[in-house]
Amino acid sequence: MARAFNFSAGPSALPEEVLKEAAAEMLDYKGCGMSVMEMSHRSSTFQSILDDAEQTLRRLMGIPDNYRVMFLQGGATLQFACVPMNLMRGRHAGYLVAGNWSKKAWQEACKYGQADVLATSEPTGFDRTPHLGGMPDQSLDYVYLCQNETVYGTMTRELPDTGDVPIVADVSSMFLSSPLPVERYGLIYAGVQKNAGPAGNTVVICRDDLIGDGPALGDIVPTYMGYKLQASKDSLYNTPNAWGIYMCGKVFHWIEETGGLAAMEERNWEKANRLYGYIDGSSLFSPIARPDSRSIANVTFRCPTPELDAEFVAGAAERNIVGVKGHRILGGMRASCYNAVPAKAVDALLDYMEDFERAHAADCRTDAQ
Amino acid sequence: MARAFNFSAGPSALPEEVLKEAAAEMLDYKGCGMSVMEMSHRSSTFQSILDDAEQTLRRLMGIPDNYRVMFLQGGATLQFACVPMNLMRGRHAGYLVAGNWSKKAWQEACKYGQADVLATSEPTGFDRTPHLGGMPDQSLDYVYLCQNETVYGTMTRELPDTGDVPIVADVSSMFLSSPLPVERYGLIYAGVQKNAGPAGNTVVICRDDLIGDGPALGDIVPTYMGYKLQASKDSLYNTPNAWGIYMCGKVFHWIEETGGLAAMEERNWEKANRLYGYIDGSSLFSPIARPDSRSIANVTFRCPTPELDAEFVAGAAERNIVGVKGHRILGGMRASCYNAVPAKAVDALLDYMEDFERAHAADCRTDAQ
Repeated sequence: MARAFNFSAGPSALPEEVLKEAAAEMLDYKGCGMSVMEMSHRSSTFQSILDDAEQTLRRLMGIPDNYRVMFLQGGATLQFACVPMNLMRGRHAGYLVAGNWSKKAWQEACKYGQADVLATSEPTGFDRTPHLGGMPDQSLDYVYLCQNETVYGTMTRELPDTGDVPIVADVSSMFLSSPLPVERYGLIYAGVQKNAGPAGNTVVICRDDLIGDGPALGDIVPTYMGYKLQASKDSLYNTPNAWGIYMCGKVFHWIEETGGLAAMEERNWEKANRLYGYIDGSSLFSPIARPDSRSIANVTFRCPTPELDAEFVAGAAERNIVGVKGHRILGGMRASCYNAVPAKAVDALLDYMEDFERAHAADCRTDAQ
Repeated sequence: MARAFNFSAGPSALPEEVLKEAAAEMLDYKGCGMSVMEMSHRSSTFQSILDDAEQTLRRLMGIPDNYRVMFLQGGATLQFACVPMNLMRGRHAGYLVAGNWSKKAWQEACKYGQADVLATSEPTGFDRTPHLGGMPDQSLDYVYLCQNETVYGTMTRELPDTGDVPIVADVSSMFLSSPLPVERYGLIYAGVQKNAGPAGNTVVICRDDLIGDGPALGDIVPTYMGYKLQASKDSLYNTPNAWGIYMCGKVFHWIEETGGLAAMEERNWEKANRLYGYIDGSSLFSPIARPDSRSIANVTFRCPTPELDAEFVAGAAERNIVGVKGHRILGGMRASCYNAVPAKAVDALLDYMEDFERAHAADCRTDAQ
């Protein structure tokens, strides 16, 4: 069967070249006589895979030397706890709640200290990104945001001015979609299963001084979750998800070889804007995210009725278009246009949307007729 | 290059058939047009992969219905904390310390409650497995052991009689090496990177009643680490290491198709005993683990001097024999003979050991000459 047009929100499409390389190296990685899945994580061969992955990521993102890079397991969900456990030294942080994921992160932080909601867009159904009213309390340990909310398809384009308070950002679904000013963050983390590799690794990029001498909460912090230890052991305190790191390294190289993050950003906006443009002009489909808050990656929209949404999703499968069903808590549709989603997949989706709209002219909004 | 004779302690050898299947399915899993790494963990295709992996494991091990099976991230190291955080309801547990891993688990448990060392073999350099003197305090929340200590190459063959106190066992390096009486344990966990798949998943098998209504330590437990939540969501509370689960499922089927756990046990003892037999009769190599405590998987031994150990390890590489260097905290050599290590690999290692011993006759123990 042909490769699917894969718009999954994550795990999501990976570059075909990368998958082919991985398949070719499956039984014998570069003449060592074994798969990367079979080799000791203490071997020089794996060490070079890990070092290369980190160095390539540092080049791609321009990560300053005073930031540590870690590959950890447990997903963003474990980071929801790792962040306050490691950084909440004054037991007081601020959270910007822009959707499902930042709300979960805030709820987790409330278990470990005072976590204030500095702003939230929940009253408007998370259709936009919330903004700080002014300069936050400078005694806060950090200001947290989920910079791209995958469920609602919103993205914070301008980082808030937090003065001297470090910004901690979950960038999972925009990680490597575009350049980021790393030096403006205290900590950046991302589940890699959107743009960087298979699920099972979370990249944590943290400024040295925030890691300090150990976790803010001290001894109750599970050893695995201590940034100080993990950073000092360069992600090898215990056995890492080695295959995942290997795949991430390949994807990092693929991004570098296909133009780097600036080129990714240009291509991704082009894909997303073609969809937003069509949806905005459509009489059948309505956008979910407000124009000023729209995501570079996750394009969310819906039909006039849930029944039509279901019909659209079912019909998509017949055209080999997958992953366009919206998140269960929001419904509707979501087309995630990550780096490895080719323009021709967007062509296919747009063709289908046009045909679907034509076939359902009767359901279209009269105000647009 | 030919496939290496891989004796790595973990990550370790995987069945060649499984790797070939995975390579063949890399760009298109069963006609769905994508890799398992690219598909949503909420898709029916991945759900069937997860369900099949769990059901195959249940058949293989004969896991009773009142035990839950979870695929979690973070390795055994995260379980060192998950176990007391979830099960230490009376804040009092007992630990059998048989080596490096059980000692780390005990140290972690001390952060969360009273963890008594019921017995330890540390005074004799962990050359044997410790034994309970008598029936433990029946008010203990659990008795913990690491049933196979990978570093020293020791294994507890007979489970201790703990009365009504649940036994919690880290069986990582003996997982699926032989049948286990699951019903005699309260909780079994295993990092899968020895016999079951690539690093990045830990299988946790826990009796329903121990999971209870939530973690013993309540709110301070990171959400990701709660067994109740993870079990109720069948390993899909958040995005799992999907590729790792897929690979484990393939390995579970391979074990079933090649005879099941009883056949694995027979073959594994045959491989290990050929090595133990040679080492016991050798004038150059000395065993590290006492005969009554030897592991089915990790055969540990050493030469008269560290220099000879280093020479042996270096020479092995020239014969395509890898992973025989002992753990850094113990030195010497270690040959891990997991399920996927073929008998011919043991042949190659024995040939090399004989040649090495002949070539170093001058270094042999005089008492044996």
